[in-house]
Amino acid sequence: MAITLFDLSGKAGRRFSPFGWRARMALAHKGLERDARVEPIRFSDKAKLAFSGQQLVPVLVDGDDVVSDSWAIACHLEAAYADRPSLFGGDAGRGMARLIAAWVDTQVHPRLAPLIVADVVDQIEPIDLDYFRSSRETRFGKRLEEIRAEREGRVDAFREVLAPARRVLGDQPYIGGAAPTFADYALFGAFMWARGVSPFRLLAGDDPVHGWRERLLDSFDGMPRREPGHPV
Amino acid sequence: MAITLFDLSGKAGRRFSPFGWRARMALAHKGLERDARVEPIRFSDKAKLAFSGQQLVPVLVDGDDVVSDSWAIACHLEAAYADRPSLFGGDAGRGMARLIAAWVDTQVHPRLAPLIVADVVDQIEPIDLDYFRSSRETRFGKRLEEIRAEREGRVDAFREVLAPARRVLGDQPYIGGAAPTFADYALFGAFMWARGVSPFRLLAGDDPVHGWRERLLDSFDGMPRREPGHPV
Repeated sequence: MAITLFDLSGKAGRRFSPFGWRARMALAHKGLERDARVEPIRFSDKAKLAFSGQQLVPVLVDGDDVVSDSWAIACHLEAAYADRPSLFGGDAGRGMARLIAAWVDTQVHPRLAPLIVADVVDQIEPIDLDYFRSSRETRFGKRLEEIRAEREGRVDAFREVLAPARRVLGDQPYIGGAAPTFADYALFGAFMWARGVSPFRLLAGDDPVHGWRERLLDSFDGMPRREPGHPV
Repeated sequence: MAITLFDLSGKAGRRFSPFGWRARMALAHKGLERDARVEPIRFSDKAKLAFSGQQLVPVLVDGDDVVSDSWAIACHLEAAYADRPSLFGGDAGRGMARLIAAWVDTQVHPRLAPLIVADVVDQIEPIDLDYFRSSRETRFGKRLEEIRAEREGRVDAFREVLAPARRVLGDQPYIGGAAPTFADYALFGAFMWARGVSPFRLLAGDDPVHGWRERLLDSFDGMPRREPGHPV
């Protein structure tokens, strides 16, 4: 069955949506990433997603199924490819993975965005610049240059919000225990977003979260590490 | 096999340790709570835990096994009573439950403590009052009365940190999906701590977290709801 992933795209096809990365890692987990067709969507291309009934990436088209939202995509893949490695490790794991993804959405992303958002302008096509700047400056209530100037003072808040992951990843290699799950990919997506756009250093080298990120960069034969981005 | 749980105790045996509640709910999940002997430990009784090699409740003694720390207790029960309902739903769920418990420890408890800590003095024996006041006033850097006076201004930060649970519990009855897991008990322990000591209202009635707490208060034939405490 032909699979197409509509994913956010910057310059030269660079893919840095954290939610796109959740979907991409979920496809890789199921052994489907290499053969999936990618349809790059720039910020100004959102009309191309009208067929999905909404305007946000990622959207997965799997045969006759159109699935938007990275959580729904993970649930679709888990059900449609139940014979492949599980993304959740069962119903309880699915419930918990959803909370962990919501933790990343509501508590990690808001502390990461101000550290990297100003760098996105260097990675997107000229046609997207005005939209990106005005939408983000409205959201943050200040100029991108001001947000960038304040980021050194905000990195501690980002590192502090990772405390739950740090505590766990000192004792187990992945959030899912011995092997990664969708909960790992939910947090990893945040780091792939950063890696794709910003040279800003997020983690100390001796942080257990750093070691975990290294392991996931090497996963799936190093697929994430081969993605163009800033070495971190 | 005889099981004893050493749990923190206030006046009239009132049990309000959040970690004690994690252990107690885990015992109930395994069908072992009713028959477990409880050894109440006041703040000033910590010498009674010397046999465990440390000074913190809860401590579980299960036959020849002495297990301290609520996470280790859950893992012990899961392994020793593998034929009973699972606390984690598998290895992936175990890994994720540990992160969720660490989220409660590092991000929920610090925002809950200032809302309720001053009320603990009404629930503990006179012999524990000096230790409790001096240790908590040192930790917070102010008098208990000052902490209490500021709490109305802090309740929004507590509700905000629950955003991941709120988002998930609007769509599924428990963090573990259709049935509660140790991840649910980790967060529920925070609310049983509050319920045992403080009349302060933590949640709006239409908050999905409120509905989830009601379901867990009714669990195990209403065992948590029968525990003396403030109706919330």
